[in-house]
Amino acid sequence: MIGRKLLERLAREGTLAGRPIAQVTLHDVVPPAPPARAPFPMKILTSDLSAPGKAEQLVAARPEVIFHLAAIVSGEAEADFEKGYRVNLDGTRRLFEAIRKAGHGYRPRVVFTSSIAVFGAPFPEAIGDEFLSAPLTSYGTQKAIDELLLADYTRRGFLDGVGLRLPTICVRPGKPNKAASGFFSGIIREPLAGQEAVLPVPRSVRHWFASPRAAIGFLLHAAQISSASLGDRRSLNMPGVSATVGEQIEALGRVAGEHATRLIREAPDPTIQRIVEGWPRNFDARRALELGFRADASFDEIIRIHVEDERQ
Amino acid sequence: MIGRKLLERLAREGTLAGRPIAQVTLHDVVPPAPPARAPFPMKILTSDLSAPGKAEQLVAARPEVIFHLAAIVSGEAEADFEKGYRVNLDGTRRLFEAIRKAGHGYRPRVVFTSSIAVFGAPFPEAIGDEFLSAPLTSYGTQKAIDELLLADYTRRGFLDGVGLRLPTICVRPGKPNKAASGFFSGIIREPLAGQEAVLPVPRSVRHWFASPRAAIGFLLHAAQISSASLGDRRSLNMPGVSATVGEQIEALGRVAGEHATRLIREAPDPTIQRIVEGWPRNFDARRALELGFRADASFDEIIRIHVEDERQ
Repeated sequence: MIGRKLLERLAREGTLAGRPIAQVTLHDVVPPAPPARAPFPMKILTSDLSAPGKAEQLVAARPEVIFHLAAIVSGEAEADFEKGYRVNLDGTRRLFEAIRKAGHGYRPRVVFTSSIAVFGAPFPEAIGDEFLSAPLTSYGTQKAIDELLLADYTRRGFLDGVGLRLPTICVRPGKPNKAASGFFSGIIREPLAGQEAVLPVPRSVRHWFASPRAAIGFLLHAAQISSASLGDRRSLNMPGVSATVGEQIEALGRVAGEHATRLIREAPDPTIQRIVEGWPRNFDARRALELGFRADASFDEIIRIHVEDERQ
Repeated sequence: MIGRKLLERLAREGTLAGRPIAQVTLHDVVPPAPPARAPFPMKILTSDLSAPGKAEQLVAARPEVIFHLAAIVSGEAEADFEKGYRVNLDGTRRLFEAIRKAGHGYRPRVVFTSSIAVFGAPFPEAIGDEFLSAPLTSYGTQKAIDELLLADYTRRGFLDGVGLRLPTICVRPGKPNKAASGFFSGIIREPLAGQEAVLPVPRSVRHWFASPRAAIGFLLHAAQISSASLGDRRSLNMPGVSATVGEQIEALGRVAGEHATRLIREAPDPTIQRIVEGWPRNFDARRALELGFRADASFDEIIRIHVEDERQ
């Protein structure tokens, strides 16, 4: 979803970091769908990045900017231990190794999407820029390891990495999915479509959000930020909006009317409640803000962005 | 050195975690030297842990406790990028994988020696238990990754890991070596032997120390500490003694007399000064202290331990 939206934005603007885009290579394990029209040529590659030789093919054209948005999501990485490590860790390492071995001064900007899943409870009231990565999932572990590799490959001069710890993306477009976090989007998206949504946790639950549009903004900003301003610590907590479920629902009422909020049905689910208790609630994303990354202004804005981008 | 001293202590005591030791397997990439006599049978294995199949051989006897003290030191991991990752990361991962695949309820206590090199400047006045791992060397990166794997393999129930971030071991016995940290031991060890020592940094430089004897105590305590008391965060900053070089030299004067301190020759080395500036100076190792890990009482004691254990 983020990859598709990023590409649509690039196709619309035709530039990246203030320069015209000469060529784009799309890569995924399933055939990626290119946008209908774009002002640059596109090459499409379908392969498993964790298989030998595939990363080398991707790097052969020596792209100046690489967005690495992979890969196996949290639930699947927890359910299939070996697959999660193979794709999320070995695939990423193969990409970094292919870049290192390309040599001859090749040093692309690599924008890597990490996750707030690198953090695990117990948390301070707001997670600061120096809080430890102590993940409580295999997915979070793999992302935290990738961040360490990104920093070391950058420090050694093999690539020029920026890691972005994205907030939970909300409102996620499309159909409901089975992710434990799915309800955060569902309780906004379904009522806006006139459909019932299920709320499995108390209204007091607090979480950390960014709209898809803000996330694309983070990626584009990360592609052009100066390496010197980043220093040695290359992964950043992205800014976001901290809101309780109750505040989400109040915002829905303000944007779409009280009738929309009445489509939310409370159905407590102890399993989901326990999972969500282990997730970050709030951040003090000072470093990213100082570096020019911009969050949504409020949860109301997050809902309005969904209405503008997905429902009009 | 730590491995040898650990084994000597085990051979002397014959017990671990309050139970008689039934068997010990020694493993190293070069033939390890067993102690002259020990009250338990010893098996010696010499192999490269990062080569396929070797970790499985090590785990075949299903030892209840594994001390993983590996491997490539800081300077070499920085000089040889591929070797450092192969041995320090892949070797450790192969060991953990061999344990996971042994299955049938096998869940050994794995005591892993990590390092304060997982931390990189800038530092707070004293590094707390929640300070981030942002290493500034490939060695520190590999140790930080190993720590993440140790925690995830533990959380998943494949092993029962404890990671120990050891302070700089001082006084390191033996001959001077070329490690940037070598002078911290050299300015004590050489004068005690009536020889001149070179001091490449100002006396104001502060660092974090533990004696070899304290380090062995950490390893033995880690072998028997309860898993429940550790929770999900399995790597701990070990307690130590924070001392400036000036305080080290004063302690030398108290223990060995002022004549010993006159054998220290100041020879500023900007390269070593710059490296040392990136190292931790002080810790607040609260968690480890609460869990019963015990540091040396003072730098005077660190010197006396060296005299007792190495010079008598």
